Amino acid sequence: MYIDPAQVPAKTGTVYPEPFKSLVRGRVKRRLGDAAGLKNFGVNLVTLEPGARSALRHWHQRQDEFVYVLSGEVVLITDAGEQVLTAGMAAGFPAGEANGHHLINRSTGLAMFLEVGDRTPDDQITYPDDDLEAVAGAAGWVFCHKNGLPYSAPE
Amino acid sequence: MYIDPAQVPAKTGTVYPEPFKSLVRGRVKRRLGDAAGLKNFGVNLVTLEPGARSALRHWHQRQDEFVYVLSGEVVLITDAGEQVLTAGMAAGFPAGEANGHHLINRSTGLAMFLEVGDRTPDDQITYPDDDLEAVAGAAGWVFCHKNGLPYSAPE
Repeated sequence: MYIDPAQVPAKTGTVYPEPFKSLVRGRVKRRLGDAAGLKNFGVNLVTLEPGARSALRHWHQRQDEFVYVLSGEVVLITDAGEQVLTAGMAAGFPAGEANGHHLINRSTGLAMFLEVGDRTPDDQITYPDDDLEAVAGAAGWVFCHKNGLPYSAPE
Repeated sequence: MYIDPAQVPAKTGTVYPEPFKSLVRGRVKRRLGDAAGLKNFGVNLVTLEPGARSALRHWHQRQDEFVYVLSGEVVLITDAGEQVLTAGMAAGFPAGEANGHHLINRSTGLAMFLEVGDRTPDDQITYPDDDLEAVAGAAGWVFCHKNGLPYSAPE
């Protein structure tokens, strides 16, 4: 019911295969929605250290995404260019809209935001800038090269 | 994509039938997720004036809900009692958990929070404290008395 974000475990890992793992170094996620027992969508409290990014630039075939900046400053990067987002600013990314997006902290301080995403099955993720594609599998995301060959399973 | 919450229309209405409409007076919602074109879940920026409440106390059969307090102070009321939530505190309400909840602003200042809810179809809402039930219909929520008789359509 009530969630104290400070008590929710801080996750620093990623399911990205190498060589992409290191690109999200400095990103810390707290899975608040999971902590509350929610199943239909996730709400993560995300902290980005200076230089860290939310994800590789990507878009989802079936799942909506939403971010709301709580503190600090991040740069939203999409096909439309770059935009600085500060506390109280938000962005949404409708499923199926072929416009890769991510957030980068180019400031010298911490940035914090909430990210929300639903869990519609049979999703796929496209990474326009990288040799990477992801398909939702029974046990989580399965990552392939753009030619369809799989990356080895993440450790 | 990018959403400026200040540019999103402020909604003060409610779909509750009388005599419940007046109970959410002082509540202002900005539908940020809708403004971004999201379909799978809603994200609302909600402001409560002193004395205002988020909703009648209720729980959903199929839809998850989540709130994150941005500023001010609200009281979360559930079967477990009352808890004051301030900025940075959160709560989640899993679908099907029969524990009515709502937020009331008992402070003397404005309170602001984000609320997230998904749009799983065939949902039902139970209001433990009031002679009210809601069922998701093709055109929105249909409200009935606990004996099954409908309230007249909201104006």
